[in-house]
Amino acid sequence: MTIQIYELCGANPERLFSPHCWKVRMAVAHKGLDWETIPTPFTEVATIEGGDTRRIPVIRDGDTVVEESLEIAKYLEATYADAPGLFNGKAAEALTIQIINWSQTALHPEVAKLCLLDIHNSLAPVDQAFFRRSREKMFGCTLEEFSAKHPKNGDGLGRALVPLELTLKTQPFIGGDSPLFADYVVFGALQWLRTSSSADYLNEDTAVYKWFESLLDRYDGMGRKGRVAA
Amino acid sequence: MTIQIYELCGANPERLFSPHCWKVRMAVAHKGLDWETIPTPFTEVATIEGGDTRRIPVIRDGDTVVEESLEIAKYLEATYADAPGLFNGKAAEALTIQIINWSQTALHPEVAKLCLLDIHNSLAPVDQAFFRRSREKMFGCTLEEFSAKHPKNGDGLGRALVPLELTLKTQPFIGGDSPLFADYVVFGALQWLRTSSSADYLNEDTAVYKWFESLLDRYDGMGRKGRVAA
Repeated sequence: MTIQIYELCGANPERLFSPHCWKVRMAVAHKGLDWETIPTPFTEVATIEGGDTRRIPVIRDGDTVVEESLEIAKYLEATYADAPGLFNGKAAEALTIQIINWSQTALHPEVAKLCLLDIHNSLAPVDQAFFRRSREKMFGCTLEEFSAKHPKNGDGLGRALVPLELTLKTQPFIGGDSPLFADYVVFGALQWLRTSSSADYLNEDTAVYKWFESLLDRYDGMGRKGRVAA
Repeated sequence: MTIQIYELCGANPERLFSPHCWKVRMAVAHKGLDWETIPTPFTEVATIEGGDTRRIPVIRDGDTVVEESLEIAKYLEATYADAPGLFNGKAAEALTIQIINWSQTALHPEVAKLCLLDIHNSLAPVDQAFFRRSREKMFGCTLEEFSAKHPKNGDGLGRALVPLELTLKTQPFIGGDSPLFADYVVFGALQWLRTSSSADYLNEDTAVYKWFESLLDRYDGMGRKGRVAA
């Protein structure tokens, strides 16, 4: 059975940039499952699978539809319990929540500062209008003002990555000897940046860079295909 | 067998303030073990148990001496495997490293800004001299300059606690339904502040406050006894 993953896309349907969709794609690949992407522009998200307020990512697995990346990871862990674990137990699942919240509050704002306008520019016109309206409301200024306010040097992202750098200096993955869902959570944030911007912000001398590159190589280099022309 | 825990103390030996020692004390209590504190001033740390470059915390359990809070937690988990788990598996142990690194880089600097001078003032004269020398080298300014630079309003700490607040809004402990070592790691940072300063910086309306209070109550209110007059 092939799992269908609804993923946010740009004007080019091969431009798949959502951090949350990448978490799910990596989790599905981790479980060794077959999958296919259904590229979905912003303005079609709400009505995925007969919904009216859907939020991406959404997957369909046979007759089952699951929404939201953590819920999908828990569904995969329970349903495909014999495949490699995404959490490996309730304790690690609980701790993953803290890592999700750290990633969302420490990394996501820094990524947004670097590529919010790039994301906008990669969308089809109807989605650009949606994105501009919703994000300008969120940030209280125009996308151009938001972008101008933040230098594009990656220093803020570097500072936010300090605790991860310390971790990856002592173990190859956040999950230890091999990646867990927590790794894909943080990978998603950095892949969001990589697929949205043509600039490279990770310092090649860091443990974070080496870890990220190793995750890009996994699953037949699946992550490397996520960076395409606008 | 009673485990001896060497803990940093002030001029008053009942003033036990080290975040790392609190992690260990909570971990030993979590395992249901008997323990006693050996209050240890800064200038006696290096030579604990015949060492010459010891760092606190150190425990003695029968013939075994273990140093450093994470190493001690791992020792307790392996040695007292039938008692309640501090990690509950290798996956959670690996994820705990990331939470330790987050706590040390996001919370510890904010706590230091609030109470570095208070810690100094609580020490015996010979330890004050040691503390001043080592910390002024670390921060590149006098303790008084460091303290004057940072407002004592807790706003920075509040911002640093945002990811934890999100976590504790959805589950009672970082470890899920009950505390794990990861909880004691973060507890240690906040208990360091609580035992060093007479001010209360946690907002009572927060999930972090309720979680911290519940940990202070544990083990016969052990944590509540850590705040004493200078």
